[in-house]
Amino acid sequence: MSSIIQAGFLQTRPEFGAVQANLDHAKKLWGERKADLLVLPELFSTGYQFQSLAEARNLSEPIPDGPTTDFLIDWAQNAGMTIVAGLAEREGKALYNSAVIVGPEGLIGKFRKAHIFDTENNFFEPGDLPFTVFDAGFAKIGIMICFDWRFPETARTLALQGADIIAHPSNLVLPHCPQAMITRCLENRVYAVTSDRVGSEKRVAGDPMKFIGQSQVVDPDGTVMVRASEDREEAHVVEIDLEKARNKRINGRNDLFADRREDLYRVDGKG
Amino acid sequence: MSSIIQAGFLQTRPEFGAVQANLDHAKKLWGERKADLLVLPELFSTGYQFQSLAEARNLSEPIPDGPTTDFLIDWAQNAGMTIVAGLAEREGKALYNSAVIVGPEGLIGKFRKAHIFDTENNFFEPGDLPFTVFDAGFAKIGIMICFDWRFPETARTLALQGADIIAHPSNLVLPHCPQAMITRCLENRVYAVTSDRVGSEKRVAGDPMKFIGQSQVVDPDGTVMVRASEDREEAHVVEIDLEKARNKRINGRNDLFADRREDLYRVDGKG
Repeated sequence: MSSIIQAGFLQTRPEFGAVQANLDHAKKLWGERKADLLVLPELFSTGYQFQSLAEARNLSEPIPDGPTTDFLIDWAQNAGMTIVAGLAEREGKALYNSAVIVGPEGLIGKFRKAHIFDTENNFFEPGDLPFTVFDAGFAKIGIMICFDWRFPETARTLALQGADIIAHPSNLVLPHCPQAMITRCLENRVYAVTSDRVGSEKRVAGDPMKFIGQSQVVDPDGTVMVRASEDREEAHVVEIDLEKARNKRINGRNDLFADRREDLYRVDGKG
Repeated sequence: MSSIIQAGFLQTRPEFGAVQANLDHAKKLWGERKADLLVLPELFSTGYQFQSLAEARNLSEPIPDGPTTDFLIDWAQNAGMTIVAGLAEREGKALYNSAVIVGPEGLIGKFRKAHIFDTENNFFEPGDLPFTVFDAGFAKIGIMICFDWRFPETARTLALQGADIIAHPSNLVLPHCPQAMITRCLENRVYAVTSDRVGSEKRVAGDPMKFIGQSQVVDPDGTVMVRASEDREEAHVVEIDLEKARNKRINGRNDLFADRREDLYRVDGKG
C-alpha cells in the first residue's frame, strides 16, 4: 500500500444550534474535493457556547445513531474518505466533548476530550476513554481535541501507540496552539491536522468568544504545509507521505523514540 | 522571601580548546551586571567539535575540582550569584556533556545531558543522573542541556518536581528550539533560560557547524521576555516573578497540573 495519502481540513463558521444547516454547509463547502482523510472542527455541528446544561443536552447526540454521526457516515461512504469530526455526545446523563472517526465502512471509533477547557466544565465530563490510535486502513490515526494539545502526554501517548497522523478538531481561543503543534510534531515525528473554526459567539455574559482559525497541517519535520486564515471559511488538502512519520530517525545517530530515557522520565505529580 | 529575582544569560563565541581564555572572556563580557541567576552555554569553556576521544578526554574535567568549576565557584562567590554552565566532565574513563550549578556557597550540583546529539555520541556517555531540581535558595532550578529540549518528558519531569526555572545551556544547530521552548514553558508554566552560543566550528570533515544564538528567557505564559541575536555575543538580565511559575492555573477552571490525566498517560514505548 502506498504511503502517500491526501489529508485535508475544513475551517468552518458554525451557526450556533443549527445542526442540520451546519452539516449541509460543511459538505457543500468541501464540495467535490478528494482526500483520504478530512478533519472537521470541534463541536462543528452545534457551535461552542452553550447557555445551559439543558441546551447542551438537547443539542448532544448518542454515538452511534445520532444525526451528526449518521450524516458523516453517509458522507464518508459517498466520498470514499475517512472523516474525523467533533460533536457533543450524550450517553445516559453524561455529556462529552467528543469526536468520531468514520470511514466508507461506517463508524470506526470515537474519542472523548480528556482535558476540558474552562466553562466546558459546566457541561461536559472529562473523557473516560483511553487515548486510542484508530486503523483507517491507509493510516493509523490518533485523535485529540483542542485543549488536549496543552498536555504533551496526549500527543506523546498517541505517537507511542503508532499514530501516523494526529487529527485535532479544535475551537481555539488562545493564541498559542498553532505554533505549539509544530513542537508536538517535532517531538513525536508525526503529522498533525488541526481543524479549527472561525467567527465569534456571544451567547453568555462577558466578552464575545473569538475563535482564531489558522487550521493547519504540520509534517514530522515541523514544517507547516498549509495554514488557513484567522477569519475565513476554508478547505485545504495536502499530500503527505506517512513513511516520514514512521521513521523516527532525525540523523544517523538519533532516533526520537529509541533515544527516549524511560529510566529517567516520570508522569506522576508526586514529589 | 521575595519571589522577584533577576535572571540572565551570556551568549558567547568560545574559542575551541582555549579553556582559560573562554573563562576569562565570559567573566569580562558579563562585567559588573547583577543577577541572582546567570546561565552560560553548553560546553562553554571548551567549544563543541572535538576531533578525537583523546582530545575530548584532555579537555574534560572532573566535577568538582576541575578548572572550570573552580573558576565558576570563585566567580559566583565574588558576584554573589548562582551560575549554571555547561562543560565537558570526566569521571574515570567516562566523559559526560554536563552542567554545574554553583552559588556563593560553592558547588550545588551537576547534571549530565540525558539525550546525546548526533556525533556527541563519539565522546560522551548518555547522562546517568536523574533529572534533579536544585534549591538555590531564591529559586528551584532544573537543568537540561540543549537537545534534551526535544523530549517533552525532560522539562515535564523537572516541572513536576517543582522547578521554577529551567536553566538550559545549549549549543543549538537546528532551527526549532527557540520556538519549541515557548511550548515547554506554556505546557509546564515554568520560566526557561536558554543560553546558546554563536559562531561556527569546522574542525572535522563536512560543512562548518553553525550555532544559531537566539538565547532567550521565556515566561510561564509563553512570552519571550528577551531573545538575543543569531550572531553576536550578548548579555541580558530580566526581572522575573517566580510566583507565576508556582501557580499552574491558567483560568478559573484549569490548573495545568491538577488537570493532568495520569490515568491516561503512558511513557513506555510498548504497544
